[in-house]
Amino acid sequence: MTESFVASEHPHTRYNPLTGEWVLVSPHRTKRPWQGKTNTVAESDASTPDPNSMAAQPANPLMPGASRPNGKVNPMYESTFVFENDFPALMPDSPSPVDSGNELFRTGGAQGTCRVICFHPRSDVTLGKMSQEEVLKVIEVWREQIADLGKRFTWVQIFENRGDIMGCSNPHPHCQVWATAFLPNEPSKKDFHQKQYFAKHGRPLLVDYVAQELQKRERIVVETDHWVVLVPFWAVWPFEVMLLPKRHVRRLTDLNDEEKRGLAETMIGLLSKYDRLFDISFPYSMGWHGAPTGQYLEQDTQHWQLHASYYPPLLRSATIQKFMVGFELLAGPQRDLTPEQAADRLRSL
Amino acid sequence: MTESFVASEHPHTRYNPLTGEWVLVSPHRTKRPWQGKTNTVAESDASTPDPNSMAAQPANPLMPGASRPNGKVNPMYESTFVFENDFPALMPDSPSPVDSGNELFRTGGAQGTCRVICFHPRSDVTLGKMSQEEVLKVIEVWREQIADLGKRFTWVQIFENRGDIMGCSNPHPHCQVWATAFLPNEPSKKDFHQKQYFAKHGRPLLVDYVAQELQKRERIVVETDHWVVLVPFWAVWPFEVMLLPKRHVRRLTDLNDEEKRGLAETMIGLLSKYDRLFDISFPYSMGWHGAPTGQYLEQDTQHWQLHASYYPPLLRSATIQKFMVGFELLAGPQRDLTPEQAADRLRSL
Ligand SMILES: O=P(O)(O)O[C@H]1O[C@H](CO)[C@@H](O)[C@H](O)[C@H]1O
Ligand SMILES: O=P(O)(O)O[C@H]1O[C@H](CO)[C@@H](O)[C@H](O)[C@H]1O
Repeated sequence: MTESFVASEHPHTRYNPLTGEWVLVSPHRTKRPWQGKTNTVAESDASTPDPNSMAAQPANPLMPGASRPNGKVNPMYESTFVFENDFPALMPDSPSPVDSGNELFRTGGAQGTCRVICFHPRSDVTLGKMSQEEVLKVIEVWREQIADLGKRFTWVQIFENRGDIMGCSNPHPHCQVWATAFLPNEPSKKDFHQKQYFAKHGRPLLVDYVAQELQKRERIVVETDHWVVLVPFWAVWPFEVMLLPKRHVRRLTDLNDEEKRGLAETMIGLLSKYDRLFDISFPYSMGWHGAPTGQYLEQDTQHWQLHASYYPPLLRSATIQKFMVGFELLAGPQRDLTPEQAADRLRSL
Repeated sequence: MTESFVASEHPHTRYNPLTGEWVLVSPHRTKRPWQGKTNTVAESDASTPDPNSMAAQPANPLMPGASRPNGKVNPMYESTFVFENDFPALMPDSPSPVDSGNELFRTGGAQGTCRVICFHPRSDVTLGKMSQEEVLKVIEVWREQIADLGKRFTWVQIFENRGDIMGCSNPHPHCQVWATAFLPNEPSKKDFHQKQYFAKHGRPLLVDYVAQELQKRERIVVETDHWVVLVPFWAVWPFEVMLLPKRHVRRLTDLNDEEKRGLAETMIGLLSKYDRLFDISFPYSMGWHGAPTGQYLEQDTQHWQLHASYYPPLLRSATIQKFMVGFELLAGPQRDLTPEQAADRLRSL
């Protein structure tokens, strides 16, 4: 017996006919508790546990042995730990809306799964401060999640929100995986443009791009045997970077052992630069984009090149961020320093 | 003698070949002083002047008679006041880059002008607390700016960033106008989709949309004789609304006297609801979109319908905002409550 769709209860997508983009609506999420950043009005009485204080640690629901808000108890995990998000934006079996047939009121189904990946048993470390072996374990978990969720879902988005300023509701080192039965806006644009380029040149866009950046050497931040970190020519956020393999690799699951080890080393190199930029534990959102999965596993996805993007909000110092507001929301993104200037600063650290 | 283009000094645009979108780069902006929000690290020693304290007022560079950071002194204005932004992201005569001919490194010129419009001589009022006559004067200034800058520029973006949380660097009631010689990403998508719809149906998309919303009455927040405020079916921000005329109107400059008065009344109605939602002076970014100007003044722009969009960041209370981070930046926007729930709450206030 299938439940019938109710817009105020079930996740779904809606189409914006003015921009051609979709929004994911997850009405049941309003029930989740809030542990993240609250604004200045309440800043003085904010009671976020201090992650560095051992006494405060048992309060953190992501720690080994802690009980989470929904009553579940975490195992005494010793390295990584994956669990289903207790307040998921997507659910695997949610009913789909019936299409209205009206092009101004288009909706779509939004089946999916949300998981949380804890990187480490301690709350006071970050990826950049973990050992290479420990980061390698996180990379393995990412690969397992893509392999597992990719069997059933079209898109598996791995992303990390780090820091209060990025709305991160928990200071414990962790990331999230949201897998969707639909291809979201951003990867869908990237699929389209990479496909067009490949059709024209017979080579993947990002493979060509990296080759040229390695010659120009104006925007390279970190380079290792198998990986490059660079500030893209078209970066939006002040210290945005892209992390890419030198070889043509479509998905995280296609990396070989050397590339995996190199990735751990490269990530640690980047993150320690980030932390040194303003002498704080640097906030960002990051995530992986590779060839779509699900039904795409059987399709030609040669045009795709794996990459991670890091979007840090800070502009001038630990306390001055870049706001993507008025002009940015209504017209288009605007940045102050050039990508070359940002790359210079990061490279020199 | 024209200056030659230097990427680290002159405003320009860059193309993202992965997404097909452009970013505006304004490297000279890093020189401007910072008066806006700083983050929690420094919150305790933030020294933003309190706009309600008369003693603090002389410090505010937007007040009548105040001297601005660049030494210019404001006139003793009694209603509105427009001036060229002292630290503009765009300049009318900046040189354009020479196109590299390389499709992975595309740049464009970015001529334009940035102005500031002060709404009122006092720093302690907001648009929603001004009289209808006073708001009408602001509407007249908006029209004048579109008429004036629209002669030379393709796009005239009027926008207001309100509140610390929206990166507003000054509490004095004001908005900005950024005029560009290029059509930015957002209006360019809207131009494309409205044109397609018009070609198919012979009617403007948003005129059809409003007619249907007025019948459904599920997402209407305020309705007056000539205007409608609604939460769009595809809204992204929790309490996002769109403000539209009932008649087909392409630009602010096309409004008649009754519509102008009605607009002042409708805006005050909306803003007082916003302020009551969480019992605070409600933060948002808002802006106007209408048919492009410049060379478009001589083209057919019947497919365009004038509208303002309001994007408020708050989700649950005065202190809990919606973060557009990880999944949103990497995949696509996600919202918690439905547009219908948001409209219900706003309507009932
Ligand atoms: O020009 P302001 O008000 O100082 O700056 C604000 O609005 C601009 C236009 O939306 C943004 O680019 C800035 O990030 C924001 O802080
Ligand atoms: O799921 P979390 O970490 O509580 O929530 C955070 O990440 C989500 C996914 O990017 C966002 O939708 C939320 O706005 C943000 O606060």
